[in-house]
Amino acid sequence: MDAAEFRKRGKEMVDYIADYLEKIEKRQVFPDVEPGYLRPLIPDCAPQDPESFEDVFKDIEKIIMPGVTHWHSPYFFAYFPAASSFPALLADMLCGGIGCVGFSWAASPACTELETVMLDWLGKMINLPEEFLAGKDGQGGGVIQGSASEATLISLLAARTKTIRRVQLEKPELTEADIMGRLVAYASDQAHSSVERAALIGGVKIKNVSSDDTFSVCGSALKKVLDEDKASGLIPFFFCATLGTTPCCSFDKLLELGPICNKENIWMHIDAAYAGSAFICPEFRHLLNGVEFADSFNFNPHKWLLVNFDCSAMWVKKRSDLTGAFKLEPLYLQHHHQESGNFINKLDYYYFHWQIPLGRRFRSLKLWFVLRMYGVTGLQEHIRKGSNELNKALLKSINEAKKIHLVPCHLRETFVLRFAICSRTVESTHIKFAWQHISQLATALLKTWEEL
Amino acid sequence: MDAAEFRKRGKEMVDYIADYLEKIEKRQVFPDVEPGYLRPLIPDCAPQDPESFEDVFKDIEKIIMPGVTHWHSPYFFAYFPAASSFPALLADMLCGGIGCVGFSWAASPACTELETVMLDWLGKMINLPEEFLAGKDGQGGGVIQGSASEATLISLLAARTKTIRRVQLEKPELTEADIMGRLVAYASDQAHSSVERAALIGGVKIKNVSSDDTFSVCGSALKKVLDEDKASGLIPFFFCATLGTTPCCSFDKLLELGPICNKENIWMHIDAAYAGSAFICPEFRHLLNGVEFADSFNFNPHKWLLVNFDCSAMWVKKRSDLTGAFKLEPLYLQHHHQESGNFINKLDYYYFHWQIPLGRRFRSLKLWFVLRMYGVTGLQEHIRKGSNELNKALLKSINEAKKIHLVPCHLRETFVLRFAICSRTVESTHIKFAWQHISQLATALLKTWEEL
Repeated sequence: MDAAEFRKRGKEMVDYIADYLEKIEKRQVFPDVEPGYLRPLIPDCAPQDPESFEDVFKDIEKIIMPGVTHWHSPYFFAYFPAASSFPALLADMLCGGIGCVGFSWAASPACTELETVMLDWLGKMINLPEEFLAGKDGQGGGVIQGSASEATLISLLAARTKTIRRVQLEKPELTEADIMGRLVAYASDQAHSSVERAALIGGVKIKNVSSDDTFSVCGSALKKVLDEDKASGLIPFFFCATLGTTPCCSFDKLLELGPICNKENIWMHIDAAYAGSAFICPEFRHLLNGVEFADSFNFNPHKWLLVNFDCSAMWVKKRSDLTGAFKLEPLYLQHHHQESGNFINKLDYYYFHWQIPLGRRFRSLKLWFVLRMYGVTGLQEHIRKGSNELNKALLKSINEAKKIHLVPCHLRETFVLRFAICSRTVESTHIKFAWQHISQLATALLKTWEEL
Repeated sequence: MDAAEFRKRGKEMVDYIADYLEKIEKRQVFPDVEPGYLRPLIPDCAPQDPESFEDVFKDIEKIIMPGVTHWHSPYFFAYFPAASSFPALLADMLCGGIGCVGFSWAASPACTELETVMLDWLGKMINLPEEFLAGKDGQGGGVIQGSASEATLISLLAARTKTIRRVQLEKPELTEADIMGRLVAYASDQAHSSVERAALIGGVKIKNVSSDDTFSVCGSALKKVLDEDKASGLIPFFFCATLGTTPCCSFDKLLELGPICNKENIWMHIDAAYAGSAFICPEFRHLLNGVEFADSFNFNPHKWLLVNFDCSAMWVKKRSDLTGAFKLEPLYLQHHHQESGNFINKLDYYYFHWQIPLGRRFRSLKLWFVLRMYGVTGLQEHIRKGSNELNKALLKSINEAKKIHLVPCHLRETFVLRFAICSRTVESTHIKFAWQHISQLATALLKTWEEL
C-alpha cells in the first residue's frame, strides 16, 4: 500500500469509525459469541501472498465486530468508563503517523517536552500543590503511564529502593534481603487488586487496612496495624490510598492518613484512577484535600476525561525518587547535551527511568488535543453531566404531567428534586410507578436536550 | 466536535500523515531545538474555553514538528528501526475507534481471541516449536506486550515465583526472603540494560556472563559462573539469552546454553527483540535453533516487521507459569462462562495475568492487517531488502560506466560483488573514489527500482 492508497483507505476508515460511533447504540452491547468463536473463522496461517484492503476491511464486520464488547455503547455499564472523543482519536492518528519512540529527550524532544507541560496543565486543573509540578525549576513533575497499575507499581518500587537505602544506613548489619523480608506495604481492603499485585511483583509483603462503615480507611485503622507490625520487627514503607474505590467509589481519609505516613517515613501513593477526573470541578476538589502529604498521585484521563486509552497521569513530588531507583544508562541511550541549571537537564528528560517499559508513544498529543478542543469548561461540563437547569426542567415536566407531585429544594448551590413518602396508603407499587414515570420523563428530556 | 466534523478533520489528518511520510526525507532528521524549547511556545495553563481544530492543527507544524526526531526518515540510523506501515496505521485507527479495554475474554472476546490466533500465525512464520503455540489445546501461547523490557520482566517474575515454590518444597526451613536473597539471574555482558533493570525490579541479583570473541555467550562461560555460584550457596534461576545484541547484533549459543539451563532448572528466556523478525526468512531461521530449550521467547514486530509501535510478541511454553505467578481475581473482573475441555477456558483468556498493566488495547488488529496485506512473501522481501537481481543490475551499471572494474561471485545462493585491491599503485584516494562511485550508482539504481 502506497501513500496514495493510504489517503483513500484512511478516509474510508475515518468514515467507518464515525459510522460505528454514531450508530453504536443499535449494536448489542455484549456479544453472543462463545469462547473460541474466532479461530474457525480465519485461516490457520498467515497468507503467503498479499491480500487486498477490501478483503481485510470486509472481515471487520464479519469476524471482529460479532466478538466486540462495545465499551462506547450507551448501554455499557460494566467495569469502568473508557474515555473516547474525536479530538483524542485525531491525536492518536497523528501519534501513529509520527511514530517516534520517545524514551529520552533526544529520541524526540517534542514528545518529552509536551508531556511535561501537559502534565503541568492537568495538575493545575485539579489544583495539585506546586511541589508536584515540573514548572521551570521544580523537583516534581508528571508522566503518562499506560495504566494505574503501572503507576502504583513504579511508586512502590521507588519507595522500596528509598527505604532499603535508608535502613541500610541506619542498620548496616542488615543485608538487602533481610530488609526486603521485613518491608510491608498497606492498602485499604477496598483497594484495587493491582495494589496487591504490585507488592507481589516487588517481592514485598502487603497487608489490608480495614475500611470503616463508609468503606473508607481512617487514620486510626492505619495506626493500629502500623503499631502492631513495627512491634513485631517489620518495616512499614508504602501506603496506597484510594480516592474512588472500584466497588463503591469510597474515599480514604487523606487528612488523617497523610500526617501518619509522613511521620513514619512511609511513602503515600494516591490511586484516584477512576474518580480523579472529577477534581477539575471546584465543587469536588475538596475530596483531594490531603494530597499535599502524598509522595505520588495518579488518575486516569483515559477513564473519565475524554482521552482515549492509554493515558494514566502520574505525578511525584521528587522525581529523583523515581529516576534514582532504576537508573541504568547504557551508552547507546545517552545523549550529550549541555547541562543547565534549570529543569532542563539531561536526566530529567529520560522518561524511561519513570516507567517499566523502555519505549513510549507520543501520548501527550491526545491530552493536548482534548484539553484545547474541549477547554476546562467543556471538560467540567462532561464531568457534571447534568445541571441545575436540567433538573429544573425535569421537575417542570413532572409537575406538568400531574401523575405524581414533587417539590424541589436547594442543597447549597445544587437544585434537588425531593421525593418524600407522604400518604398513609403508599405501597411499593406506587413508588415503582413513580420511578418509572420519572425515568421516562428524564429520558425524553435528555433526548431533546442532546438534540439541541 | 461531532461525528460530522470528525469525518472532515479525520480526512485532513489522513492527508497530513500521508504528506508527512511522503516528504519526510526533506525534513532535517534531528531537530535543532535546545532542551526546554517548547514551554515558552505554549500557554501556562489549559484554555478555559474550547479552541477550534484549526487552532490546534496549525500548531502541529509550528510547535511540535520543530522538536520531532524523525524516526521514519531514511536518514535515521540511530537506536533501532521503529516499524511503520500504512496497513498498521489503518489498524491502529480502528483500534482507537473500537476503543475497548481487552483485559479479559469478556471485556471484548474478539480482542483476546484475535491476539491468540495472530501469535499462532506469527509463531508458525518463524517455525517456533509447537509447544509455544496455543493451537486448540496447547499448553503454550503468545501475547502482545508493550515492549521487550516487559517480556523480560514478566518472564523473570514467573521464573522467580516458580523457583521459590520449588525450593520451599525442597527446603521448608527457608523463608521466602531467604530464598529471594539467594536467587541469581544471568545475562550476557552484551545484553540490553532492560535485563539488569528487570532483576532490579524483581529484587534479585543479576550477574553478567562473559561473551566470547564474537560477543556471544557460549555454554562453558555460563557453566563456569553457575558452578561458582552454586558452590557459594546461591540459587541460579533465570538466564536471558540474546539473539541480536544491541551493540553489534551478536547471537548467544542457544544449542549449548539451552541444555545447561534445562538441566539446572533455570528458566531460559530469549530476547530477540531486534533480530527476531529475520527468522521469517528460512535462510536466517538457523539462528533460532535451540529455542526448543527455552521457556519463553520474545521479538518485536514493531522494530522490523512493519507493525507500528507497540507490538512486542512473546510466547511461553507453559502459560500457566505466567498466569499462576500473579493471579488475583477480584469479583468485578470475573466472567462466568462454562469451562470447556479445550484451550478455551476462562483463565487462559485473562490476558492481564500475562502482563504488568491491567488494561490493554486491541493491538492484534495491526498484526492482522500487516500479515494479510503484505503476506509472508512481502514481509520476507522487506527483511531481505536487496535481491540477487538488484546486485546483478548494480554490477552491470558499474561495469558499463567503466570507471572501475569488478567481477562477481556466488556465496551459496547469494550473488556477491567482489572488490579486490589489485594494482600495486592503489592508494586510499582510489578506494574512496571507487566507493563514492559505487554508492552513486547504487542510489540511482534503487531510485529507479522503487519507481518501478
